[in-house]
Amino acid sequence: MTDSQKRTIGLVFYPGMTSLDIVGPQQVFSALPGIQIHRIWKTLDPIKTDDGMMVLPDTTFENCPRLDVVCIGGGIGQAAVVDDPEVLEFLRKQGSTAKFITSVCGGSEFLAKAGLLQGYRAATHWAARQQLAALGVEVATERVVIDHNRITGGGVTAGIDFGLTIASILCGEETAKVIQLLLEYNPAPPFDVGSPEKAGAELVNKAMFFMQGASNLELAK
Amino acid sequence: MTDSQKRTIGLVFYPGMTSLDIVGPQQVFSALPGIQIHRIWKTLDPIKTDDGMMVLPDTTFENCPRLDVVCIGGGIGQAAVVDDPEVLEFLRKQGSTAKFITSVCGGSEFLAKAGLLQGYRAATHWAARQQLAALGVEVATERVVIDHNRITGGGVTAGIDFGLTIASILCGEETAKVIQLLLEYNPAPPFDVGSPEKAGAELVNKAMFFMQGASNLELAK
Repeated sequence: MTDSQKRTIGLVFYPGMTSLDIVGPQQVFSALPGIQIHRIWKTLDPIKTDDGMMVLPDTTFENCPRLDVVCIGGGIGQAAVVDDPEVLEFLRKQGSTAKFITSVCGGSEFLAKAGLLQGYRAATHWAARQQLAALGVEVATERVVIDHNRITGGGVTAGIDFGLTIASILCGEETAKVIQLLLEYNPAPPFDVGSPEKAGAELVNKAMFFMQGASNLELAK
Repeated sequence: MTDSQKRTIGLVFYPGMTSLDIVGPQQVFSALPGIQIHRIWKTLDPIKTDDGMMVLPDTTFENCPRLDVVCIGGGIGQAAVVDDPEVLEFLRKQGSTAKFITSVCGGSEFLAKAGLLQGYRAATHWAARQQLAALGVEVATERVVIDHNRITGGGVTAGIDFGLTIASILCGEETAKVIQLLLEYNPAPPFDVGSPEKAGAELVNKAMFFMQGASNLELAK
């Protein structure tokens, strides 16, 4: 199979994106047969993720081919680029032809701002639910939401469930199962506090306080 | 707090490492207060991970300070560097002073080859259990294993459970819980096949076949 015969998945990169939002699905997608992954931003310059790692995009908005799946994640840096016309225009353009329009975590806000989620049910990070609803999206609390060709995941680690769900749609359930086994995805969280409902108000407030602090830090850079 | 007062966590990078092995814990560690993360390799040149992403180390073996926590993951590329004397010497040197000597997934093989796991119980990727046992390590099947100051995680996604466990040890249970909530780590795997025991022989054989193919591809590069 030549590269031009492969199906294409585009992961939009940006400064301050959450690594794990993207690397969860990327690790799944990279194991799929016949898939070409593009890591896309305005330039090919190194990008610092919100956990401090430098990563290199390999595709620009300009030279990106038509994507079968377009995907964007969230991150502490998203406030700085979520209204960027170049980013939204890229999403709109790819969204007009992509087979699947997708996001993980706060990435759903980009899709909504590009006008791609209105009238659809969608997941997002728990802390971004109100914000997404205010953009006219029917916000759902499931970890992965499929509504027609919109596939959205909840916060950060939901990207793994999201990735396996897309793997199953693109390449069948057996392939998705083999990948789940390869990634030994048999989770055993040390605590039972992974959702706001389970964590309770006190931990939720502490998490909100942390996010506020991290955003200020990011803005002060 | 100045950088020199921070506790240091070193993540060893190498060509063909599994992104998710490292990014899972990295995303957790980056949210810890008073922690400096080093991403370490021989040079600062870009490295291609086994899911095809280019990442940049920020610290070399030579200029790496004394680490409080040293950590290495697995990956399709590990066979090419697991006997590299420079890598093993770095692990031995840091291991002689680190408070915690740790690995995720196949990274345990590096620790064992550096002589740092003999006489300890340790976790690894399910497909690497026999190999690790052959190096004189007492292989455990739990997702995260703590034996004295050795902390090891199982395959790939176990790195998230591993990271939260270390977060709890370094900064207390409440901080680890806040991070688990921030990462919305409330997993809902689409299938129940995340361990060889759950997946059964047929899927295990298919996963082994995939890994063999991926290794050959990596070696042919």
